[in-house]
Amino acid sequence: MTTSVTAANPIKRAPATDGVLDIFLDRWSPRSFTDRSVSAEDLKRIFEAARWSPSSSNEQPWRFIVGIKGTDTFDKIVSTLGGFNQAWAHKAPVLLLGVARKHFVKNDAPNHYALFDLGQATAAITLEAAALGIATHQMGGFDHDIARKALGIPEEFAIGSVMAIGYVGDPSALPESYAKSETSPRSRKPLDEVALSAWDEPLKLD
Amino acid sequence: MTTSVTAANPIKRAPATDGVLDIFLDRWSPRSFTDRSVSAEDLKRIFEAARWSPSSSNEQPWRFIVGIKGTDTFDKIVSTLGGFNQAWAHKAPVLLLGVARKHFVKNDAPNHYALFDLGQATAAITLEAAALGIATHQMGGFDHDIARKALGIPEEFAIGSVMAIGYVGDPSALPESYAKSETSPRSRKPLDEVALSAWDEPLKLD
Repeated sequence: MTTSVTAANPIKRAPATDGVLDIFLDRWSPRSFTDRSVSAEDLKRIFEAARWSPSSSNEQPWRFIVGIKGTDTFDKIVSTLGGFNQAWAHKAPVLLLGVARKHFVKNDAPNHYALFDLGQATAAITLEAAALGIATHQMGGFDHDIARKALGIPEEFAIGSVMAIGYVGDPSALPESYAKSETSPRSRKPLDEVALSAWDEPLKLD
Repeated sequence: MTTSVTAANPIKRAPATDGVLDIFLDRWSPRSFTDRSVSAEDLKRIFEAARWSPSSSNEQPWRFIVGIKGTDTFDKIVSTLGGFNQAWAHKAPVLLLGVARKHFVKNDAPNHYALFDLGQATAAITLEAAALGIATHQMGGFDHDIARKALGIPEEFAIGSVMAIGYVGDPSALPESYAKSETSPRSRKPLDEVALSAWDEPLKLD
């Protein structure tokens, strides 16, 4: 049975906007994960969603190195994390690292959209996961060089984010310094700062 | 009434996978757009979905410059497009350009995830649009320097993609050279090339 990823922390749900899909409003980035594993069926759904993402010239520059808890890959990803992230992320059942090919296969020209398109496919992962009641938390706080070396990522691939994937746990399972951010509302810039009709002019949407 | 973005071209729909949301399977990038405009209410929903995207340190580096047909901004975006894109994209009712702040506001450090996070917010736009029956088509084929100058984008912001937004039109409205890609199936790499358990090792998902 699918449950919402905000069920444990309803304060994390963004204010409802009629017609906006729940996955956008529900998706948030917890640090407390239960020890429940993610099924192969659900992982397949998550990567299937990512697979159909758009990319420049349909290059599909993305690759996802997926560590399931108990595997070498999982431990290697944990070893790259900064202390702040290591302290909570090792409890998630899945950790992945996304990377993106820097040049087009067809002509070896630089792909300006490598990380951009990896970001699009990564968003699909987070949103399909949310639809399945599965939480995700991305991290930039890891050592990119150690990750490249530990996981054998060729220089040709740019490093994206590490993502923890699993089920939202109880905030009380975290040290107090982490617990606070589990129970405070999410915040974003207002729409009129990000949707513009010209530089520095808000788009009129009402 | 919302209609699917693959209603006009069902061949564009990706093979159904049980449990994968329709928006991932239905989203595709047409070149034929009708002259139907996109309502302010729907644009608001689309940007609201993007607004709640995750980003490194919650920087939200994305800004979207939105040109509605008939405005200077629309014409300026058209002027940046390569001939191949200009020929069809001028018919869409909305064109936007996404850009991303290159440094963190809090400490002016370079943001490695600027374009990556712009990509995540851009994906939200395409997916919420798909949920509303609205098609999107991103382009990298435009002159980034002309775009920066014409739209007054500060050097501090990296250029992302231009996106056409509107309703799918009939393939027959396009010149034959474009029409073919409107009616051929979408293709992607198989899952075992992009979801890996270690470099060059497919993740076992069955």
